[in-house]
Amino acid sequence: MLLKENERIDDLEINGFRIIQNPSSFCFGMDAVLLANFASSKKNFRVADLGTGTGIIPLVMAAKGKGKEFVAFEIIPEMADMASRSGKLNGIEEHFHVINMDIRDIIPNPDISQESNKTGKNKTDNSDAGFSDMIKKGTFDFVTSNPPYIKVDSGLHNPSSSLNVARHEISVTLRDIIQAAAYLLKDKGSFAMVHKPFRLPEIITELKATGLEPKRLRLVQPKAGKEPSTILIEAVKGGGEFLRIEPTLVIYDDDGNYTEDVLEIYGKL
Amino acid sequence: MLLKENERIDDLEINGFRIIQNPSSFCFGMDAVLLANFASSKKNFRVADLGTGTGIIPLVMAAKGKGKEFVAFEIIPEMADMASRSGKLNGIEEHFHVINMDIRDIIPNPDISQESNKTGKNKTDNSDAGFSDMIKKGTFDFVTSNPPYIKVDSGLHNPSSSLNVARHEISVTLRDIIQAAAYLLKDKGSFAMVHKPFRLPEIITELKATGLEPKRLRLVQPKAGKEPSTILIEAVKGGGEFLRIEPTLVIYDDDGNYTEDVLEIYGKL
Repeated sequence: MLLKENERIDDLEINGFRIIQNPSSFCFGMDAVLLANFASSKKNFRVADLGTGTGIIPLVMAAKGKGKEFVAFEIIPEMADMASRSGKLNGIEEHFHVINMDIRDIIPNPDISQESNKTGKNKTDNSDAGFSDMIKKGTFDFVTSNPPYIKVDSGLHNPSSSLNVARHEISVTLRDIIQAAAYLLKDKGSFAMVHKPFRLPEIITELKATGLEPKRLRLVQPKAGKEPSTILIEAVKGGGEFLRIEPTLVIYDDDGNYTEDVLEIYGKL
Repeated sequence: MLLKENERIDDLEINGFRIIQNPSSFCFGMDAVLLANFASSKKNFRVADLGTGTGIIPLVMAAKGKGKEFVAFEIIPEMADMASRSGKLNGIEEHFHVINMDIRDIIPNPDISQESNKTGKNKTDNSDAGFSDMIKKGTFDFVTSNPPYIKVDSGLHNPSSSLNVARHEISVTLRDIIQAAAYLLKDKGSFAMVHKPFRLPEIITELKATGLEPKRLRLVQPKAGKEPSTILIEAVKGGGEFLRIEPTLVIYDDDGNYTEDVLEIYGKL
């Protein structure tokens, strides 16, 4: 009943949690799992996820007890619908809200009066009535995002496909996401993001410019001695200057097997 | 003849190069050697080192053929003198110039006319006549620095000691150093620095604000699975946005011996 055509249910292997995915559109990758693991969110936190896709990040965080209430934003209606059904599949729909809207609309447009904005004009809510109450400024303890990594400037075919929206900055830029996170967070609330190493300077500049101070950074390398493929970063709204760089996470050992650190993240140790 | 009281000569073990040090004031550490190794400077380059201490960075770079002409700045007269004598000790004094001056005076004070500034008032040159020609704006291909790591705000005793000037931001701040580097560099020239991980956000912000775009970053970890103790970063004046994060450098293996990467840096492989 919960499944539509081409969809399947995958076991997340954490406390029995499962996720609905459609292999023909987009399946979650390791980056999302690494971010959910990296995020320092606590069990009583109110958490937002920006560009949730299938909802993988808040689902893993819910499975790990890293939050009390989750609000996940997704622009593509089919993906938002899938994420919402995954919430029901795991019986957490009362604490797992999926909002089908553009992240760029989270910050109210100053040209539109606050009232007309609150009516949710041009927004569709697949799962929750009264979602506008959920996106009040400064009401979240924690925000996560696994945003598109690639700037749009060349050779992009089929820009509207789910895969392209997830991978390229078609519907949101890095700045849009960081500004939305800063808007949603309480003072001293945290924003955790996964991204590509080559964009670290821009990420740090944008975070600091928005009042989010980088406090934790972790590089992820496929192997010892190889360049990192991924970065995990956490920033605190109104935090003081002091970055803790954590030990580089290595995915595979020299024999090509998962390292103990990764097995622990996947709950296999 | 080249040695003064309490000084000694140490072998750098690279192409027969040696260095004069005074163990009672300050001896170079691994960070300087790692930076000299990390720096992508080429053999025909004109290189400046900001806060050179005993001259360790340009000496190692000269030993490795990473520059044609070196200009090293040092505020403490005794240290500048020692670095200058190390140049003579290695027979490279014609290409190794030590200037005893405050890095903050590299950028001409706008209140003083260009001419009076060029006379080098309030500056002492321990080794070179006419050094003002050597610090013309935009004339260096490469700049290095192993600056003081610690902000001055608490509990600092004996602020004038060589050790404190080398370790604390007494005579220069991070911003002073980055601005001096940007001033000295040609367009597309590079600035390489070693620093502490916790200041990375500030470093990146200051570099970008000064037109130096971070292009290479390497973390240095004492061991696999331990937090990095040091970062190496290189930025290009007027470069485009794209950071390459290199594989994390691990110093000791699980048995407490130097890793192959470090042995290679020290020329033992």
